[in-house]
Amino acid sequence: MKSVSSAKSFGGTQAVYSHASTSCNCEMKFAVFTPPEDLHGTGPYPALFWLSGLTCTEENFITKAGAHRVAAELGLVIVAPDTSPRGEDIPEDPEGAYDFGLGAGFYLDASEHPWATNYNMYSYVTRELPALLEKELPIDMSCIGIAGHSMGGHGALTIHLKNPGLFKTCSAFSPIVAPSEVPWGRKAFTNYLGPDEAAWAQYDATKLVTGSKSDADILIDQGTADQFLTEQLRPELFAEACRLSGQSLTLRMQDGYDHSYYFIATFIEDHLRWHHERLSRE
Amino acid sequence: MKSVSSAKSFGGTQAVYSHASTSCNCEMKFAVFTPPEDLHGTGPYPALFWLSGLTCTEENFITKAGAHRVAAELGLVIVAPDTSPRGEDIPEDPEGAYDFGLGAGFYLDASEHPWATNYNMYSYVTRELPALLEKELPIDMSCIGIAGHSMGGHGALTIHLKNPGLFKTCSAFSPIVAPSEVPWGRKAFTNYLGPDEAAWAQYDATKLVTGSKSDADILIDQGTADQFLTEQLRPELFAEACRLSGQSLTLRMQDGYDHSYYFIATFIEDHLRWHHERLSRE
Repeated sequence: MKSVSSAKSFGGTQAVYSHASTSCNCEMKFAVFTPPEDLHGTGPYPALFWLSGLTCTEENFITKAGAHRVAAELGLVIVAPDTSPRGEDIPEDPEGAYDFGLGAGFYLDASEHPWATNYNMYSYVTRELPALLEKELPIDMSCIGIAGHSMGGHGALTIHLKNPGLFKTCSAFSPIVAPSEVPWGRKAFTNYLGPDEAAWAQYDATKLVTGSKSDADILIDQGTADQFLTEQLRPELFAEACRLSGQSLTLRMQDGYDHSYYFIATFIEDHLRWHHERLSRE
Repeated sequence: MKSVSSAKSFGGTQAVYSHASTSCNCEMKFAVFTPPEDLHGTGPYPALFWLSGLTCTEENFITKAGAHRVAAELGLVIVAPDTSPRGEDIPEDPEGAYDFGLGAGFYLDASEHPWATNYNMYSYVTRELPALLEKELPIDMSCIGIAGHSMGGHGALTIHLKNPGLFKTCSAFSPIVAPSEVPWGRKAFTNYLGPDEAAWAQYDATKLVTGSKSDADILIDQGTADQFLTEQLRPELFAEACRLSGQSLTLRMQDGYDHSYYFIATFIEDHLRWHHERLSRE
């Protein structure tokens, strides 16, 4: 694990590290905010994994979400991985589209050629990165939550539902909740997982929640002015599946907010407090 | 004035506009945050002009500083212009350097060819933009402050000192305070203003404060781990000039902070409250 950068922020430290990933077969970067030691000691601290959306890297959340102030106050680590494998040898969308390939790993393990060699963000986020962090950083691995935005909201929901014992709390902004039903998800899953839709269900939050609801209360914030709301996001599909399965869900439709980081910045404090309060009960 | 974008943020609105600038002879963009009407009515509101640093556009501050939360609470408009003229016909640094030309207007009116046609950010910020805003937006032009970062801190200090009746309050993060003495400033001034250093004094805060101190108390935050501190910034030169001239200055050396937006985000709340409190007394 190599240090890429480090800066003081709200008394804590915002660092970026890189390491050779065995899941993704390339060098991967991730960002970590650690809270001020003079307020919270040297840890181990509870942590929130943040999964970003299409086109993002490990940088977007840490520079745009305004999360440091409250994370510093609460004593919460924030871990923000990249959204896909990266590098010259990594296959990408043949037309350079923003919604597939680089910046669009969809937090799954690909089964299809040529993607399966590198596009294994599910294993990366759920196994490789937690193991690395446990070894290298002052994180209490029994107190981790997960959250994300858009494609990263899809990642947070599916990863929580499949690993409720590891990622104990879950929230999302503007998530893709039913990738099997929407253009972004269908394109990505067809390429990464092949045309057999039966293989898609393991990475579809709306399908997963039917069979694997968690004991956690899931929080979703969704802006009503989001340009992707009706075609790509469709939170009502997840809400209905939660209702049928008995999954506890708090879905807040936020009037007039769009898909941008301004929306995330406005409500990130609520999410950080939501996770911290629930993780503190563990 | 054309709308480029608009997004809800903390109950207010973050908009970007463009317009044909007569000062810069090109289309210019600027960003405006207006606070929530349900909390603060429809204005006119007090406003803070924010001037960004080298390489920045009107976007950096509004996406990275985390200023909306407190501006929304206080009922403060934030106006963030671009840092230079832009466009295909605008002359730029022949080697594409980051510290001169595009993204590096230094908030002055150039006198030298080929810069004088477009590089007139001083007139733009002090005359053209205020006149446009007064006509188009709910801003109380008798309650404006100015702040900035690095090159924009230089802009804020010089513009305040030359226009204390228009920009009544002033603060800066990591400002260039003595451009005539440091490499960034000497390069820019030699090109924009010519080799005669006598012409530089009108845009040098340390020289200006000797002759034109303001009644305002100026706030400067400077990180001690700033990589540009000793070569480019040198706040001690301004502090000494303020001491000699009787200019009130609060210079805070912030332990361990660097030159980045993490530093700005950490202390922007202090600056917004500083300006708002003083503007509210007017």
